[in-house]
Amino acid sequence: MEEKVYVGVENLKEFVSGILKKMGVKKKYAEIVADVLVSADRRGIPSHGVQRFKRCVDEIKAGRILPNNPPKIVKETKVSLLVDGQAGLGHVIGYLVMEKVIKKAKKSGICFACVRNSTHYGIAGYYAMMALPHNLIGISMTNSDTLVVPTFAKDMIIGTNPIAVAVPTKNERPWVLDMATATVPRGKVEIYARMGKKMPLVWATDENGNPTEDAQRVVINLKEKKGGGLLPLGGAEEETGGHKGYNLSVLVDILSGVLSGAAYGNYVYKEKNPNIGHFFGAIDPEIFIGSDKLKERMDDYIKILKNAPKRVGKDRIYVAGEKEYEKEEEYKEKVPILKNVYDEILNIAKEVGYKGELKIMG
Amino acid sequence: MEEKVYVGVENLKEFVSGILKKMGVKKKYAEIVADVLVSADRRGIPSHGVQRFKRCVDEIKAGRILPNNPPKIVKETKVSLLVDGQAGLGHVIGYLVMEKVIKKAKKSGICFACVRNSTHYGIAGYYAMMALPHNLIGISMTNSDTLVVPTFAKDMIIGTNPIAVAVPTKNERPWVLDMATATVPRGKVEIYARMGKKMPLVWATDENGNPTEDAQRVVINLKEKKGGGLLPLGGAEEETGGHKGYNLSVLVDILSGVLSGAAYGNYVYKEKNPNIGHFFGAIDPEIFIGSDKLKERMDDYIKILKNAPKRVGKDRIYVAGEKEYEKEEEYKEKVPILKNVYDEILNIAKEVGYKGELKIMG
Repeated sequence: MEEKVYVGVENLKEFVSGILKKMGVKKKYAEIVADVLVSADRRGIPSHGVQRFKRCVDEIKAGRILPNNPPKIVKETKVSLLVDGQAGLGHVIGYLVMEKVIKKAKKSGICFACVRNSTHYGIAGYYAMMALPHNLIGISMTNSDTLVVPTFAKDMIIGTNPIAVAVPTKNERPWVLDMATATVPRGKVEIYARMGKKMPLVWATDENGNPTEDAQRVVINLKEKKGGGLLPLGGAEEETGGHKGYNLSVLVDILSGVLSGAAYGNYVYKEKNPNIGHFFGAIDPEIFIGSDKLKERMDDYIKILKNAPKRVGKDRIYVAGEKEYEKEEEYKEKVPILKNVYDEILNIAKEVGYKGELKIMG
Repeated sequence: MEEKVYVGVENLKEFVSGILKKMGVKKKYAEIVADVLVSADRRGIPSHGVQRFKRCVDEIKAGRILPNNPPKIVKETKVSLLVDGQAGLGHVIGYLVMEKVIKKAKKSGICFACVRNSTHYGIAGYYAMMALPHNLIGISMTNSDTLVVPTFAKDMIIGTNPIAVAVPTKNERPWVLDMATATVPRGKVEIYARMGKKMPLVWATDENGNPTEDAQRVVINLKEKKGGGLLPLGGAEEETGGHKGYNLSVLVDILSGVLSGAAYGNYVYKEKNPNIGHFFGAIDPEIFIGSDKLKERMDDYIKILKNAPKRVGKDRIYVAGEKEYEKEEEYKEKVPILKNVYDEILNIAKEVGYKGELKIMG
């Protein structure tokens, strides 16, 4: 296990946004980025938390992210938005576009937004969950860096392209799906490589495109783009359903990338600006069964799932989002981050001349 | 291999619709059912083809399907329909509702429909593909008979709940995803059982909920509801991504069943009428990148995928829908059906007193 330290949630947000403000980023934008990143850490998804902050800062410095550019509406109807992110901060674009999507769905019943020319937006679930306080179903998808191998291909062509959907409930916690369409994220392969542990054969392929248990080899191949890559949900073979995961990834890319005018497939991150595409949506249950009934029925469904008899050796059935909500409650005041990530953030602060303090709380 | 016979496509449609008309089903409705069923056979999905016709006839006889009941609109906005299927024929409900969804999407840019109180509607892809000639993206989902085990559960609670999305293209064949959220359908386990072949461990669980290779045992357990069942895409373990397939199945059920007022989870097929729920949608690309650009970009994406280097030992990368289109072209004039299915259909004709002829063409 790598060394971790705990820091205060509010302190961490202030520190991250403080650095961005010092770099010249607008106050509101800096605070959105900090909130999305720290939310990921709180929800137990550190791969998309402040661990990602350095990359964000580096991309701002390199001019690949133009942090004060606001998202620009290119086309608008009562039920849709086509948005140019203008290479701004992905988190800010996601937040501001989803706000508009929610407002329009409240009026029209449904709204979808396609976004092009954006950058990495963090956890997909954050934006889907923004719909929940408004009693709407929220949807968020994005294409992403080329890491996944289509079924029977040798090389990476598609992204881990996640799907997030949040559905309101009555007394139960909201149902929040937030899943990459790859079997596992790159970070998981890296952890196995460091531990020298064998991977299941449905995680990744070697440089010839064959399924492999050798995590260290895959980590090197990914870095050097030698061939092979992560496998879609279902693994390498049609027999295990790999073509389904591959096509789900392409579906997310069609909605996020192809339909918006963003990059798609292996065009993502090919130019100076990443040109990532997102797809956001909100549906008002009032146009169907109605909010109250939807919430009651969701509670009932969740109870059926949780109370069902367990498989031998298992004592719990999880519903989507449950693990993340438990983490969020556990990390309400203070959140763990890797010691080397803590050091990295302190270094960034030093480099940009930000004087704030990030206290270790244990 | 089980014995097959070839019959003429038009002859088969006429024969199937002829039987239904003889049973008192409206001409238009009978012809829709025949077209959907025979389309499945032509597309190489015989499990949802005329093989299913006997079950449809039996359900009409038992009063579980009320075949002349038209779908009734319960609630309508410019962008949505809430529909009561009135226990009519699922294929007819799907066809008529999707027609309306397409019309409304052409006007409003987007339309979604939730349907309750429906019955088995055949291949999900049929309805999604109805959007293609109108230059729309088509969406079709349905919940279904309880057959799938949620991650760490012992028993079947959810359905194989398919997702279908059809996207128009320019010169390439349309991109058509039509996938169950289970790793494989029940029919595939039955084929392995008959062949005495071992299944991959991601297909099904035994009566204790543990992954099993024993197809014969699973077939018996499914019939006698002894425990265990089909596995979601990703298999039984979180390590292999099984929780993702499980939650995709629940997502389809939320949109089709919970949001419409239909049955959901293991309530499906619990009452006299199956009370199945569907979810249909159409999106006009004109509100985003535009139809022409979408089609050009889809062609380019499809070419990237198909022309990419292949994994060692493989000579082809498929895109969604490609295999089905090739079958459809192959079976343009005549289509293979199992000899015992042929005999079964002839028997139904005899029972209802239908005098048509179904010629064997080889």
